[in-house]
Amino acid sequence: MSYQKLEATFEKISHLEHLRAIVGWDEAVMMPTGGATSRGKALSTLHSITHELLIDPSVGDNISAAKQETLNTWQTANLKWMEKMYVNAICLPVRLVQAITESRLQTEQAWRRYRAENNWQSFAPELDNIFQLIKEAAEIRAEKFSKNVYDVLLDDFVPGVTEAMIDPLFAILKKELPQRIPAIVEQQKQLSSIPLQGPFPIEQQKQLGFFLMQALGFDFNHGRLDVSHHPFCGGVPEDVRITTRYNEKEFISAMMGVCHETGHAIYEQQLPKKWLYQPVGRAHCMACHESQSLLVEMQVCRSREFMEFVSPLIKRQFGNSEEGYSANNLYALYTKVQPSLIRVDADEVSYPLHIILRYEIEKSLFKNEISIKELPEVWRLGMLELLNVDTTNNYRDGVLQDVHWPAGLYGYFPAYTLGSLAASQIFASILTAHPTLLQEVQHGKFTTLFAWLEQHIHRHASSLDFQQLLFHATGSTLNPKFFLDHIQKRYNFR
Amino acid sequence: MSYQKLEATFEKISHLEHLRAIVGWDEAVMMPTGGATSRGKALSTLHSITHELLIDPSVGDNISAAKQETLNTWQTANLKWMEKMYVNAICLPVRLVQAITESRLQTEQAWRRYRAENNWQSFAPELDNIFQLIKEAAEIRAEKFSKNVYDVLLDDFVPGVTEAMIDPLFAILKKELPQRIPAIVEQQKQLSSIPLQGPFPIEQQKQLGFFLMQALGFDFNHGRLDVSHHPFCGGVPEDVRITTRYNEKEFISAMMGVCHETGHAIYEQQLPKKWLYQPVGRAHCMACHESQSLLVEMQVCRSREFMEFVSPLIKRQFGNSEEGYSANNLYALYTKVQPSLIRVDADEVSYPLHIILRYEIEKSLFKNEISIKELPEVWRLGMLELLNVDTTNNYRDGVLQDVHWPAGLYGYFPAYTLGSLAASQIFASILTAHPTLLQEVQHGKFTTLFAWLEQHIHRHASSLDFQQLLFHATGSTLNPKFFLDHIQKRYNFR
Repeated sequence: MSYQKLEATFEKISHLEHLRAIVGWDEAVMMPTGGATSRGKALSTLHSITHELLIDPSVGDNISAAKQETLNTWQTANLKWMEKMYVNAICLPVRLVQAITESRLQTEQAWRRYRAENNWQSFAPELDNIFQLIKEAAEIRAEKFSKNVYDVLLDDFVPGVTEAMIDPLFAILKKELPQRIPAIVEQQKQLSSIPLQGPFPIEQQKQLGFFLMQALGFDFNHGRLDVSHHPFCGGVPEDVRITTRYNEKEFISAMMGVCHETGHAIYEQQLPKKWLYQPVGRAHCMACHESQSLLVEMQVCRSREFMEFVSPLIKRQFGNSEEGYSANNLYALYTKVQPSLIRVDADEVSYPLHIILRYEIEKSLFKNEISIKELPEVWRLGMLELLNVDTTNNYRDGVLQDVHWPAGLYGYFPAYTLGSLAASQIFASILTAHPTLLQEVQHGKFTTLFAWLEQHIHRHASSLDFQQLLFHATGSTLNPKFFLDHIQKRYNFR
Repeated sequence: MSYQKLEATFEKISHLEHLRAIVGWDEAVMMPTGGATSRGKALSTLHSITHELLIDPSVGDNISAAKQETLNTWQTANLKWMEKMYVNAICLPVRLVQAITESRLQTEQAWRRYRAENNWQSFAPELDNIFQLIKEAAEIRAEKFSKNVYDVLLDDFVPGVTEAMIDPLFAILKKELPQRIPAIVEQQKQLSSIPLQGPFPIEQQKQLGFFLMQALGFDFNHGRLDVSHHPFCGGVPEDVRITTRYNEKEFISAMMGVCHETGHAIYEQQLPKKWLYQPVGRAHCMACHESQSLLVEMQVCRSREFMEFVSPLIKRQFGNSEEGYSANNLYALYTKVQPSLIRVDADEVSYPLHIILRYEIEKSLFKNEISIKELPEVWRLGMLELLNVDTTNNYRDGVLQDVHWPAGLYGYFPAYTLGSLAASQIFASILTAHPTLLQEVQHGKFTTLFAWLEQHIHRHASSLDFQQLLFHATGSTLNPKFFLDHIQKRYNFR
């Protein structure tokens, strides 16, 4: 059967992806800088071998033949993913793929330099270069898949999602959040909170992180926690590698980072074993992955009940401020809302506005309504409108702050907020099914939570599309109501 | 040019070997046990892709064509290695290669179980199974290369070395060492030494190890030190990964382990950059590699002068026994000779006798003079004769002690002693060229040492054969005289 032949090919490809994932983790966590040259060569060879397996004409023939075969639901979904990977791999001219790879490396390097120098003028032509290449590739694929250009890019990160679907969701957020934030900030001014006094020894922070991972249900027989410059979740489902970073001056970001990445990790660890090496067996998409990490971080681990659970642990680890480590004070500190310039430092209420700005800019760029050189002014006006902060002449903390555009990643940002909305919606469903769940959280019990996630999200891997998966798990497609309810409940509690 | 096409293919193969090396390091140092299944599949795919690149008919055609082309010395040597790899890869039937791979995994697992149980009877048939497969493969290759069967295996680990070359060397050691050992043991009884009192905190041991690596000249921009169950030197020349293991009860094995692996590592780090991705650019062979690690460990780091250098460092790290950490006492402890059952714990004087026993057994096995089931009795008699220790009914610390035979590694053991002999010979040459070298060592200066090794050994990579390399570096082919002189000098000093 042609379908079986495809499974064999894609299993082989997944083994090569395993190597890429482990070696990629090594690069971020272990590799000395002098190893970069030979590592780059090795990865480039691995990439081209994987690509050659994928574009072999037999793959196309087998896909056509398999469409005539009798397949079950999972096999049908698997075949759909295979075809998508295949078409994406064959439809671009080799010279364009190479130009993008080279431009990406060069623009990322330039970005590091020019961002440090706050130098937009010199960076703009470089950014324009990679943007034009990405646009050219997206236009080719748009024609192939009969989609609009920006939708092709959105689809790379959240398959099936389109501008038409995102626009109304983001319109609601754009209307609601800018008016709610000043009220929350004003209200929080009346709350007193005690700042925590360090230093917080890294060894103690590590112990706390390991303890929380254990409590949440991370399987250390199938994964590790290490340190890297930027926290991430890598590796493979049977060997999930998460990282965090430590700062002796405060422990909250490392601790919340560990909770966030553990949300990603348990998703990977609970994927169905039977489909581990097939496209359909992978975690669904960026938005779905982010829904799992944000559910754990924002819904569970920033809840007042979690603070009750973690407060005595924190006292035990750092015990020098009884008052500061009270659940009430931790909650006040962990749920502070304060609009600021930087997306990655943003609280959960202002975060979507950072995303909406980027989304609107990307849409305009791909519709040729604005050009790269206009970005700082568009950014300045957008930040004023949405968050009421001023980025005049501050490119470093403005349009130059993210690596995504220099790395050629357009269409990626919306996934963060789609994930955030999904996390609220999914968590609301869990609370409906298990009204006492937060009492369990208060006692450090997370088995009900992750069993629910396994049953309603994780076990489906990529067998459903994003909206189907949500509908199946929560009874509704993506709806911003649950996020706004969550904000209302958490921040307008009086 | 066909030769250039071959370089492109073998560079690609070296990139895949890079991935194997890093992922292999990860498996030993980082991987949680639950990651083993998917890792095994990934490595097996990597192996088959590498194999397919190597056996492509174009490789054979290009080798034939390249032989007619004008090549320089290095290119000629490179072509020779390429041909050897190619012929080895194509000459065995696929079913035999698969049977060996499966049997190897199974026998290693059985070995772990039966060794723990001291159960030779149940293990013997399993060992016989893999032995017969290895013999069958060696016989096919022997015919192909017109060599005798055991020589084919020796050649896998030390290319060019044969029984005919080893026999006279080992005969001298077999005559000399058994009579010298009792005299040394007797003499050492009259030396008083103070045993060192732990615990020796692991953090302090780590610091000492890093300090010594730095002093020896290990380039941390191109490598790391980590922990694994069995110490090893892995990774790639631009990113060398060495490991050690720590025991709070004593620090000598971890410290000497680090020195030993640093000897391997600096060999890798000093290989010529120009040839990094070609067969001729690799470190020469097992014996040559071991000569570098043993030169650093045994010749340099167990010298009285090194003890003078390291004694104050040890005092600083563990400072609770002024007398015990004196250079004299450390020297007495570090050069203790005591015949024992276990090869890996043996002192440098009795070590070659462990190897000679295994070498003689392997020769007899491949000549059908003995069979696997007779091994314990042959072992018992050999250990009595060579080291005067009794292994009656102690299979665990006798014939079952090494993983090599269960792993199908025959012809490997002699490399250890060839390396040891070469280390003595090379070090004698260095001392002739630099008579004050040990005074430099006493002051923690190792640049003269490693500059000499770079010039006379490392920079030649695999461009010369083992005997040529030694002749070039020392003015003589391998000669046991230097090892015996070294023993005489170190142990019969009065």
